[in-house]
Amino acid sequence: MDYKELSLNLHEKHKGKLAIVSKVPINNKDDLSTAYTPGVAEPCLRINKNKDDVYKYTLKGNTIAVITDGSAVLGLGNIGPEAAIPVMEGKAVLFKRFANLDAFPICLKTQDTEEIINIIKNLEPVFGGINLEDISAPRCFEIEERLKKELSIPVMHDDQHGTAVVVLAGLINACKVAKKEINKAKVTICGAGAAGTAVAKLLLAYGIKDIIVVDSKGIISRGREDLNQAKKSLAMLTNPSSLKGSLENALKQRDVFIGLSTKNLLSSGMVRTMNSPIIFAMANPDPEIMPEDAKKGGAVIIATGRSDYPNQINNVLAFPGIFKGALSAKKKQITDEMKLRAAEALASLVNNPSPEKIIPAPFDPGVVDAVAKAVASCEL
Amino acid sequence: MDYKELSLNLHEKHKGKLAIVSKVPINNKDDLSTAYTPGVAEPCLRINKNKDDVYKYTLKGNTIAVITDGSAVLGLGNIGPEAAIPVMEGKAVLFKRFANLDAFPICLKTQDTEEIINIIKNLEPVFGGINLEDISAPRCFEIEERLKKELSIPVMHDDQHGTAVVVLAGLINACKVAKKEINKAKVTICGAGAAGTAVAKLLLAYGIKDIIVVDSKGIISRGREDLNQAKKSLAMLTNPSSLKGSLENALKQRDVFIGLSTKNLLSSGMVRTMNSPIIFAMANPDPEIMPEDAKKGGAVIIATGRSDYPNQINNVLAFPGIFKGALSAKKKQITDEMKLRAAEALASLVNNPSPEKIIPAPFDPGVVDAVAKAVASCEL
Repeated sequence: MDYKELSLNLHEKHKGKLAIVSKVPINNKDDLSTAYTPGVAEPCLRINKNKDDVYKYTLKGNTIAVITDGSAVLGLGNIGPEAAIPVMEGKAVLFKRFANLDAFPICLKTQDTEEIINIIKNLEPVFGGINLEDISAPRCFEIEERLKKELSIPVMHDDQHGTAVVVLAGLINACKVAKKEINKAKVTICGAGAAGTAVAKLLLAYGIKDIIVVDSKGIISRGREDLNQAKKSLAMLTNPSSLKGSLENALKQRDVFIGLSTKNLLSSGMVRTMNSPIIFAMANPDPEIMPEDAKKGGAVIIATGRSDYPNQINNVLAFPGIFKGALSAKKKQITDEMKLRAAEALASLVNNPSPEKIIPAPFDPGVVDAVAKAVASCEL
Repeated sequence: MDYKELSLNLHEKHKGKLAIVSKVPINNKDDLSTAYTPGVAEPCLRINKNKDDVYKYTLKGNTIAVITDGSAVLGLGNIGPEAAIPVMEGKAVLFKRFANLDAFPICLKTQDTEEIINIIKNLEPVFGGINLEDISAPRCFEIEERLKKELSIPVMHDDQHGTAVVVLAGLINACKVAKKEINKAKVTICGAGAAGTAVAKLLLAYGIKDIIVVDSKGIISRGREDLNQAKKSLAMLTNPSSLKGSLENALKQRDVFIGLSTKNLLSSGMVRTMNSPIIFAMANPDPEIMPEDAKKGGAVIIATGRSDYPNQINNVLAFPGIFKGALSAKKKQITDEMKLRAAEALASLVNNPSPEKIIPAPFDPGVVDAVAKAVASCEL
């Protein structure tokens, strides 16, 4: 199908995808006096007296801000805040469809880290959670970390953690199918942007010890002098045998390839140097290697970001349930434990994992509730 | 009716009043690929190429931000951004009900003028218009003026201009009924906050020449040394005979009293010193004088802010139509001309003005369309 044309028509016909509606009737003077003045003064006064009543009398507890600066939108790059709106509206639509959360797109005109942090801090009152979206690395790391410290509502950069949760879920089942012990798996991650970095950290938190991360310049190792702060910190956490060199060097005898980079980086020949490998080729829309070619190279399990192949690694499996769980249980943060439990919950929804089915599909029943329950049951 | 109790119940039952919904179906993979990736990349790229396409493919052209800092909410004062949410949600509900616009409440955690201006500038991409609400004077003047200059979408502080438009509309008909020539009417405005100041300026723009403004310290005149910048500028524009002294002094032989201050400031005796007066007593919820007492003092026409007396001066008569007209005609600003034409349109909706009916009621048919048409027909 020509989704480009379909999508243009859909967006033009509806002028976007979101509407804001009233949950209360306004049909006469009494309705006005109840929903608005003079009646509305009463919930205002209650909240003024006890700030926590904001969750009782307003939209806050069910409302998410989907916030971007338009700096890293899909695979399109730095297209700016206006051009990012269709994606953010789409994200809000998915929040509604899958978790019944009310999400509103905020597309900021600035790409200055401090300014973004300051604006989001000042937007806090009306929102129950902040979904950061499509903000480029390494700024996204500082923005998220600072906001997690300075806000008292959950903040999550979905490009990082939504991706990491679904990758871990898929990897848990892939290792089962491939009869590899996950904590002993040798994992090579290609791409050290927002997603690659977060995947590395979540896999470490899960207990995987041998992880190598490769960026466009080669293997990230303690010796390299061209690393920014985020990559320096990755170098300390990964690559225990201090390997150096190209992606080719990083693949020999490894069990898992996780691609969060660009298309066509991986060849059948390179796959052949790996150890009965699990290949997650998630560059969008064109993966690092097409599934057919990965199979030729001996891959035993293949996942991509695409819906037209089996095993789609799709963030929509994670973020609706994560925020639903966090908001329903009034969590103040989204912790590593929540992400780990969410990944396990997702993995366990697949009854009999097979090479063609290591991860649920977005419309499989129970996905959001399982993730939400896992998150809500965590401490904090 | 006990609107307090009704309102508390309504807000608690629905957890606020607004919901955000999808205008497009998400029932299968194809829907996902059209509303979200990969299809959504296409409208993004179109907007990236031609920024004006943001009005074609996104929610922007129908979406209003209702923005407050919680510093002057209703008559409740500086109750803060969380406690202001029920009012801002209410405003958004009214935008939907009366103009079918999508409005979202933004309640800022800061009350710093520069910070507010900067935040709103950075929020511009996703909104088609900015309705400032319940921001205290004199900060509201600078915030609105600066944003009008620096943004390319309409910005209006409703407490100022919505009020001014409806007051002028009412006054046009009141003068007709009272057989006073409006441009020669001697008008005394009690209250020099956001609303009083804007009313004074709009009446001047309409052609009324003799206006006196009174604040809590007395008549605003060029001689006074305790005036802030906004009041100094009012002193230059009003009080042509340089009257000084108390509210009592400002009322003798005057034709019109416009109260935007606090309850019980005006007595029957004071009304009696006026000239067959028109009394607009709009302090909320308790007016400067109760209609019964104004009548005792000889008032020929009486309006209030209340729905339980005739002639309710209610902003909902103005702001939905003003923004509807401005957005539909892609105006970049809301000008004085638009406000004047909107007021005339409102006034002309009352076929046979009488002491009991100088202004339409909120649910009268045609109100929003008449105002929108008047605004859309203006230049700029």
